[in-house]
Amino acid sequence: MFFIKNRLWKRGIFVIFFLLISASFIVAETTLTLPETLKIALDTVWVLFATFLIFFMNLGFAMVESGLCRAKNTVNILAKNFIVFSVASISFWIIGFGLMFGNGNEFIGLEGVFFVTGTDASPMINEAYTGAYTALSWTSVPLWAKFIFQLAFAGTAATIVSGVVAERVKFHSFIIFSFILIAVMYPITGHWIWGGGWLQSMKFFDFAGSTVVHSVGGWAGLAAVLFLGPRYGKYRADGTSNMMPGHNMSTATLGALVLWFGWFGFNPGSTMAVGDGGAIAHIVVTTNTAAVMAVASATITSWVIQKKPDLSMILNGALAGLVAITAPCAFVSVPGAAIIGLIAGCIVVLAVLFFDKIKIDDPVGALSVHLLNGIWGTLAVGLFAIDGITGTPTGNGLFAGGGFSLLATQAIGVLAVGAFTFGGSALVWGILKATIGIRVPQAEEIKGLDIGEHGGEAYNGFQIIN
Amino acid sequence: MFFIKNRLWKRGIFVIFFLLISASFIVAETTLTLPETLKIALDTVWVLFATFLIFFMNLGFAMVESGLCRAKNTVNILAKNFIVFSVASISFWIIGFGLMFGNGNEFIGLEGVFFVTGTDASPMINEAYTGAYTALSWTSVPLWAKFIFQLAFAGTAATIVSGVVAERVKFHSFIIFSFILIAVMYPITGHWIWGGGWLQSMKFFDFAGSTVVHSVGGWAGLAAVLFLGPRYGKYRADGTSNMMPGHNMSTATLGALVLWFGWFGFNPGSTMAVGDGGAIAHIVVTTNTAAVMAVASATITSWVIQKKPDLSMILNGALAGLVAITAPCAFVSVPGAAIIGLIAGCIVVLAVLFFDKIKIDDPVGALSVHLLNGIWGTLAVGLFAIDGITGTPTGNGLFAGGGFSLLATQAIGVLAVGAFTFGGSALVWGILKATIGIRVPQAEEIKGLDIGEHGGEAYNGFQIIN
Amino acid sequence: MFFIKNRLWKRGIFVIFFLLISASFIVAETTLTLPETLKIALDTVWVLFATFLIFFMNLGFAMVESGLCRAKNTVNILAKNFIVFSVASISFWIIGFGLMFGNGNEFIGLEGVFFVTGTDASPMINEAYTGAYTALSWTSVPLWAKFIFQLAFAGTAATIVSGVVAERVKFHSFIIFSFILIAVMYPITGHWIWGGGWLQSMKFFDFAGSTVVHSVGGWAGLAAVLFLGPRYGKYRADGTSNMMPGHNMSTATLGALVLWFGWFGFNPGSTMAVGDGGAIAHIVVTTNTAAVMAVASATITSWVIQKKPDLSMILNGALAGLVAITAPCAFVSVPGAAIIGLIAGCIVVLAVLFFDKIKIDDPVGALSVHLLNGIWGTLAVGLFAIDGITGTPTGNGLFAGGGFSLLATQAIGVLAVGAFTFGGSALVWGILKATIGIRVPQAEEIKGLDIGEHGGEAYNGFQIIN
Repeated sequence: MFFIKNRLWKRGIFVIFFLLISASFIVAETTLTLPETLKIALDTVWVLFATFLIFFMNLGFAMVESGLCRAKNTVNILAKNFIVFSVASISFWIIGFGLMFGNGNEFIGLEGVFFVTGTDASPMINEAYTGAYTALSWTSVPLWAKFIFQLAFAGTAATIVSGVVAERVKFHSFIIFSFILIAVMYPITGHWIWGGGWLQSMKFFDFAGSTVVHSVGGWAGLAAVLFLGPRYGKYRADGTSNMMPGHNMSTATLGALVLWFGWFGFNPGSTMAVGDGGAIAHIVVTTNTAAVMAVASATITSWVIQKKPDLSMILNGALAGLVAITAPCAFVSVPGAAIIGLIAGCIVVLAVLFFDKIKIDDPVGALSVHLLNGIWGTLAVGLFAIDGITGTPTGNGLFAGGGFSLLATQAIGVLAVGAFTFGGSALVWGILKATIGIRVPQAEEIKGLDIGEHGGEAYNGFQIIN
Repeated sequence: MFFIKNRLWKRGIFVIFFLLISASFIVAETTLTLPETLKIALDTVWVLFATFLIFFMNLGFAMVESGLCRAKNTVNILAKNFIVFSVASISFWIIGFGLMFGNGNEFIGLEGVFFVTGTDASPMINEAYTGAYTALSWTSVPLWAKFIFQLAFAGTAATIVSGVVAERVKFHSFIIFSFILIAVMYPITGHWIWGGGWLQSMKFFDFAGSTVVHSVGGWAGLAAVLFLGPRYGKYRADGTSNMMPGHNMSTATLGALVLWFGWFGFNPGSTMAVGDGGAIAHIVVTTNTAAVMAVASATITSWVIQKKPDLSMILNGALAGLVAITAPCAFVSVPGAAIIGLIAGCIVVLAVLFFDKIKIDDPVGALSVHLLNGIWGTLAVGLFAIDGITGTPTGNGLFAGGGFSLLATQAIGVLAVGAFTFGGSALVWGILKATIGIRVPQAEEIKGLDIGEHGGEAYNGFQIIN
Repeated sequence: MFFIKNRLWKRGIFVIFFLLISASFIVAETTLTLPETLKIALDTVWVLFATFLIFFMNLGFAMVESGLCRAKNTVNILAKNFIVFSVASISFWIIGFGLMFGNGNEFIGLEGVFFVTGTDASPMINEAYTGAYTALSWTSVPLWAKFIFQLAFAGTAATIVSGVVAERVKFHSFIIFSFILIAVMYPITGHWIWGGGWLQSMKFFDFAGSTVVHSVGGWAGLAAVLFLGPRYGKYRADGTSNMMPGHNMSTATLGALVLWFGWFGFNPGSTMAVGDGGAIAHIVVTTNTAAVMAVASATITSWVIQKKPDLSMILNGALAGLVAITAPCAFVSVPGAAIIGLIAGCIVVLAVLFFDKIKIDDPVGALSVHLLNGIWGTLAVGLFAIDGITGTPTGNGLFAGGGFSLLATQAIGVLAVGAFTFGGSALVWGILKATIGIRVPQAEEIKGLDIGEHGGEAYNGFQIIN
C-alpha cells in the first residue's frame, strides 16, 4: 500500500483533495484516485502501444535486409533477424536492463542487475520513487512496461549489425556477438546517456537513440565488416565493384514502410508518458517531416548522380531521415526537422557510393543509414535545438543562438560512444575470429548460406539464378 | 494560461469544482485539471494511433497495386507508391492543410495557409477556440495532431490515382500531378465538406471520406486514364481484351489485409476524439460488417459470373465494402452497414468487368473500388442514415423515413466534387501531356518501367517471362 | 452531475448512488463524471486497439500457411484465409456471440442470441449491469466493443483449421465447416469457459484462449485430417515421408512476426480493461518471454535433432511459445513464463517430426503449434499459477504449492473441450464428406488448387516447378 507524494508529475501541483477520495483498482488497497490511476493507465497503454510498434520493426529489418540481398541467402538472413530479437530479449532480461538502468555510478548500473529483480516503487515517480531503477523514475508506468519498452529498443540495436554482416557471417558467431552486445556493451553506453551516467550528467541529448541505438549498431557493424571482409566476388581484381542487386524489392519496400510505421513508436513513444499530448504530437510531425524530406532529397540525389531514381536509394533515404531525426525529434521545430531530413537523404546516397568505393562491403547500406545518420542526427541536436520546445530544457543549439556549447557536448558523446562500442566490438569479433571463426567457408558462401547453415531454401520451386 | 469553458464535450456537464484544482503539465502555466488534461491526452493518443494506421495503408496500396500488376513494373509501382506519400506530405504541409482547414469563405481556406503557421488555441475547443483553423476546433487535440491525421488522409487520396495509371505513366509526371492534387485540388473540395465550406453548410455528410478521399482519388484517376489510354497490348484489334494477371497474389493479399487493418484508423479515427467510446466502437463494427458482407457478395458474384471465385475479385470486394462504409460508418446501424457492404461487393465485380468492356484500362480496379463505391457510400448516407445514431444530427435517410432530402444533398455533393476534381485533373493531365508528356515510350513499356525509369529490376535472379 | 465515490469497481463495493442514475450512453442525458467517462473511453480504446491487432493476425496466418505450402496452392490458401474471417464474422454476428455470451445455462447461452440484439446496459458493470450478456459485465466498455473483440478471437479459431487441411480441401466445404464451427461449436465450448458455463463455475482458467481458441481450432483440424487423409504423394509406398518444403520463407517469416505482433493484442487485450496498467504490462512481458524462450529452445532442438537450425522450426517455435503462454499469461510469473516457453519450443519440434512419422499430414505444423501447445499452456496454469499475481484469485498451481487441485480442473477442461470439439467436428466433416465431398479431385490436387478452384495462379510470369 502506498501513497502518491507531492509533485506527482512534471511541474504538477499535488492536490490534497484527491487523497480524500479512495478508489481501488485491480490491486486492492491502493489509494490512488480515479484520475491518478487513469493517468498511469493511459501512460502504460501508450508505452505498450509504442513497444508493439518497435517490436514490429523486427519485421521491417528482416524484410529490408533479406530483400536487398541475394535469394540464396534469404533463409539465413530471415533466421538471423528472427532469432536476434530472442537473443536480445533474453540477454537484456538476464543482465542488460540492470546494467543500463540500475542505480550505479557514472559508468555502469550496479543495483538490481540480474533478471530485473531490483526493488521498485513504480509507478510512483520522482521524489516518491524508491528503488533500484531511479533513472526511469520520471515516468509513471509499471516497471514491466519500462522494461519491455527498453527491451524493444535493445533488440533494434542488435538487428542493425545483422545487415552489415549479411551473406557471409556464421550463424552461431553472430548469435554470440549479439548476446554480448545486448548483455554488456549496449547497456553500458546506454547507461551513460539514459541511465544516469556521465553523458547524461553533462547534458548530452539523444531523445530516442540516434546514438544510443543506431550508431551503436553501426559501430558494432563497422568493427564486424573490418574483420569479416567483403563478400566473395564483390570486388574484382581490377578494383571495380560488382553490383549485387537485391532479390526482392517488394519485400524490401514492405520492410521500409514497416520500419517507418514502427518509428512512430520509437520516437513519440520515447516520451514514455503522454503528458498533455502536445509533445507526442510534435514528435510525430518532426519524425514524419524528416522522413519525407529525406525521401525527396535521396530521390533527387540518386536521380542526379545515378541518372535514374534507384528504389533502394529511395528506401534508404527514408530510413536515413528517420535515423537522423531520432535524437532531435523532441528538441527541434518542424522546419528544423525538414532540414535535418533533407541533409540525411543526401548523406545516405553519397555514403553508400563512398563505402563501395573504399571497398567496405555493406550489403544493405546499414552503415550509411544507421552509423552516419545516427551521428548526423546527434550532432543536429547541437545545431537546431530550441530550448524547451516540447518542455525539455536543452539550451539552444548553434542555429538557435546558443553557440557551440551544446554542439560540443553532442560531439563528445558521439566520439565517446563510438570509441567504446567500436573498440569493444572489435575485441569481441577479433576473439570470435581467432577461435570459432566468423565467416562461412567460401564454397558455402558461393552456394548460399541457406543450404549451408539451415539445410533449406527460401523459394522452393522457383527457378533462380543467383 | 486559459480555462476550459462550459460544455467541454458532447452533452457533458461541466463540473465547476475541477476549476478549483490546478495542475500543470509539460507546458507550464496551464491551469487544466488532471481529468481535463487526461481527456486531451487520451484524444491525442487516439488520433495519433489512428494516424499511424492510416499511414500504414501506404503499404497496403503499394502491395495491392504492385501485386496485381506485372513483375516487370514492380519497382516503378513501389517507387511511385513510396514517394507519393512524401510528395503529399510536403505539399500538404506547405499549403494544402491551410487551404483545406484555414478560416476562409465557402470555397477555400484563406487564413494560416502556408506551413501550418496560423494562430491556434488548440486544444481549446468550440467557443473557447481562437485561431485560424476553426473548422477543426471541435476536437480537443493539439494542432500538430490534427495536421498529421489529416495529412495521412491526404496521402491516401494521391495513392489511389497511382493504381489507375500503373504500368505506363511517366514517373516524374505522376509526381508533379500528385503534388498539385494534394496542394490545391484535394484541399478545395475537402474545404467544402470538412473545412467549413458550402457543402458542410448545406449538411452534406461524409464521415470519413468516401467522397473527400476515395472518389476524389477516383475522379483524378479517371481523368488520367482518358488522357493516358490503355496499356500496350491490353485490347486486341478484334476488340477483345487481353488478360494481364497480377504477378504476386501473396503481396496483393497482404496489401488488402493491411488496408483493412488501416481502415480501423481511417473510419473510427475520424471521430478525432474518443468521447465516451460508444461512437468509436459502433464505427468499428459498421466498418467491419460492411467489409465482410462485401467479401461475401463479391465472392458469390464472381463465382456466379466467372464460374470460379477469383481472388482479385475477393480482395477488391473487401476494399469496396470498406470504401462504401467510409462515408456512412457513423450514421447507419449495423444491419444498414451490412446491406451497404453487400451491394458494394456486387458493384465492384460488375464494374471491373464493365470498365474492361468499355476499354477503360484500370489495371488494379481502382475506379471500381474507389470511385464507384465512393459514390455509392456517399449516397448510402442518404438512404440509411439514422438521425443521431452516434450523436450526429444527420436527419434520417430515405429508408429511415426521412424522405429524399438528405439523399438529394448527398447527390449534389457527389456531383459537385466530381465535376470539380475531374475537370481540374483533366486540365492538369492535359497540360502535362502537352508539355513534358505523361506516358513512357512504347519500347520502355514493353520492356518494363523498372529498367526504363529506375535502372533496376524487382526480382533479380528469378526467371520471369513477362 | 456526481463525484467519484469509494472503491468504484472490481473488488469494489457497489455504490448505490449509481443505481439512482439512469446511465444512458450515446443517447443523451448521461450523467457520468469526466473521470468516469474517461475510464470507459480508455478501456474502449484499449479493447479496440487489441481488436485491431488480433484482426491483423489474419495476415499472419495467411502468410505462414501459404508460405509453408507449395506455390501451386497459394491462391487457394490466401483465398481461404481471407474469406474465413468474413464467414466467421457473419456467423458470429448472426448467432455465435449470443450462444457464447448470452445468459443461459451451464451449457449454452439462450438470451439475446440473434444478431447481438439482447438488451444491454453496458458500459455499466457488475451489479449495475442489466441485460442479456452478464458474462461480459465485468468490463466497462460498450457492447459493440465487447462484440468486435470477441469476434476477432472467433475468427482466429477458424483460421487454425485452414492450415491443417491445406493443399487438398474443397474451397466450399471448408467455408461451410468454418461457418458451423463459429456459429455453434466454438461458442458452446467458449460459453463453458468464458460465458458463465460449467467450466467457469468450477474455476477452470484460460486467460486468453489456449483452449478456447487454439486447441479448439486444433481439435477441429485433427478431425478434418482424419477424414481428409494426407496430400497426394506425401507418403511413399515404402512408408517414408516425402518432404514438401514451403515455397516462400519470406512471407512465412513475415507471417510469424505479424502473428507475434498480433499476440500483443490477443493476450494483454484479454484484460478487456486497462485497470491500473499493472496487469497488462505483466502480461506483455510474460507473453514475450515465453515466445523468445520457445524460439531459443526450438532452435536448439532443431539444431540437435536435424543437425541444422531449420527456419520453419524456428518460426513454429515462436508460435508454440505464444500459444502456450496464452492461457497462463496473467497467472504466472516471468520466470514461470520462461519455463513454459522453453518446453513449448521443444514440444513443437518433436511433435512436427512425430506427426509426420505417424502419417498425420499437417502441412504447416498447425496441430503441433495450436493443439499440443494449447493443451500444454492450459495445463501449465495448473503447474505455475501464482494466486493473484495480476489480481485474479486462481489459487496456486502445483509448483507454487497449491497441490493438484487446479491442475486437475485444467485437465478436465482440456478433455471436455477436446471431446466435444473433436466429436462435433468429426460429425460435420463426416457429413460433408458423405454429401458434397471434402477433397478436390486428384488431378486438380496434382495440378494445384489455384487453377482448379480459382482459375488463376499466384505468381504469373515466374518460372516455377511445383
